[in-house]
Amino acid sequence: MRAPDSLRDLVEAYLEDLPLTPALGGLEGPMRYALGGKRVRPVICLATVEAAGVPAEEALPAAAAIELVHSFSLVHDDMPAIDDDAERRGRAAVHVAYGEGVALLAGDALLAEAFKLALLYPTTAVARELAEAALGMIGGQYLDIKGADEDLAELHRLKTGRLFAASVGMALWVADVPEREQAPWRAFGEELGLLFQIVDDVLDNDGYALRLGEDAARDLAAAAAERARDALESIPADTSTLREIVESLAVRTT
Amino acid sequence: MRAPDSLRDLVEAYLEDLPLTPALGGLEGPMRYALGGKRVRPVICLATVEAAGVPAEEALPAAAAIELVHSFSLVHDDMPAIDDDAERRGRAAVHVAYGEGVALLAGDALLAEAFKLALLYPTTAVARELAEAALGMIGGQYLDIKGADEDLAELHRLKTGRLFAASVGMALWVADVPEREQAPWRAFGEELGLLFQIVDDVLDNDGYALRLGEDAARDLAAAAAERARDALESIPADTSTLREIVESLAVRTT
Repeated sequence: MRAPDSLRDLVEAYLEDLPLTPALGGLEGPMRYALGGKRVRPVICLATVEAAGVPAEEALPAAAAIELVHSFSLVHDDMPAIDDDAERRGRAAVHVAYGEGVALLAGDALLAEAFKLALLYPTTAVARELAEAALGMIGGQYLDIKGADEDLAELHRLKTGRLFAASVGMALWVADVPEREQAPWRAFGEELGLLFQIVDDVLDNDGYALRLGEDAARDLAAAAAERARDALESIPADTSTLREIVESLAVRTT
Repeated sequence: MRAPDSLRDLVEAYLEDLPLTPALGGLEGPMRYALGGKRVRPVICLATVEAAGVPAEEALPAAAAIELVHSFSLVHDDMPAIDDDAERRGRAAVHVAYGEGVALLAGDALLAEAFKLALLYPTTAVARELAEAALGMIGGQYLDIKGADEDLAELHRLKTGRLFAASVGMALWVADVPEREQAPWRAFGEELGLLFQIVDDVLDNDGYALRLGEDAARDLAAAAAERARDALESIPADTSTLREIVESLAVRTT
């Protein structure tokens, strides 16, 4: 099992060499600019595929597709029409760097290009999982802008959780894990998404941390981490890298 | 062969009953609002499938997917960041009716939902054709906002032509037309897209009509219509409904 850092290097190299659709022309610059990030989701995808006994390399198009969908959502969410954030990851947001029209189109193109990647597999299942996740995420973002945060858990399950769950789910299709064996893997993906969201909220002091108080949010994170570990233990495979990902997330709130 | 009006009724009924992804919640309203239109592209898709010997009904998910992608592009293009059009089809544009944030998300959701529809087929080819067309269309829109209209033909080939060509191309995959037999069908799709664009420009007195003058644009349309007819004649099938579509477009400039 390769460590998360080693899988991250794989993703970086793949994204760097990834040819975008030639017809996009000058949109390539803003799209690549938008693709910064820690690669949390693609690393989960690769680690899942390896745990399922298939070389991580086979999941690279799926992993990249997830990262493109994640980046698409950030580009659009940062726009004045939604969150109006001028900065992202310490530098100008895409709409500030390139203008709003280009940001709108670059986001659209990242989403469409993600499907093209997910469609490199012979089965439609990989792309179907991506479509469901993207739609759930968009639904979560809609709840967010409508201020419908009375149900914070549902909002986050959609807005963050769906793409985390798909990072595992797409890997299961790539690795050809039979549907009847997918349940514990998917339970793990759900808990990991929840854990990530709570940790993020504790670090930023918003969301769950603001709603419940920091201590209660930490407890919630610890419980999610425990359920994620339990799910991994019920999988008859070497899930050590996935366990490492859980621990590195869990430690950030303690 | 059913007439275009009869195929249009099929599309309307399918779109009206189409269940959207439940997680989209309140986005359903603005998405359905955005789905007005003349159904030009889906009718071409259904007519192609029938000409290829398969019941039009089998192409309904593909045809609807094309219409969703077309609608997505209009919603985003109308936004202030791009064309800043307050009206569409005689009523308020989505961003005026529902706000810019909702319009942004409704467009995103239409695009993702389109892929979900194209992924209902057992082959990935239908969705791959849609992805390529959407990416080409976005590339064309980028050329448009950058004012790179020195090559008007290339701009339109991408912005309008790609989706027209995909209306035929997706139908070929649905009908399982072997790749070696697709060339004349695809030539027809290309010419039909060009014909539609020129006719549209003549009626609006912009684009080709503004660039070349109305008479030269009409001549260009007549030549495209003639090439479309030639392409149809080289197909060993009953393409009478497709021919009818060509004639109803061609007559609009004469």
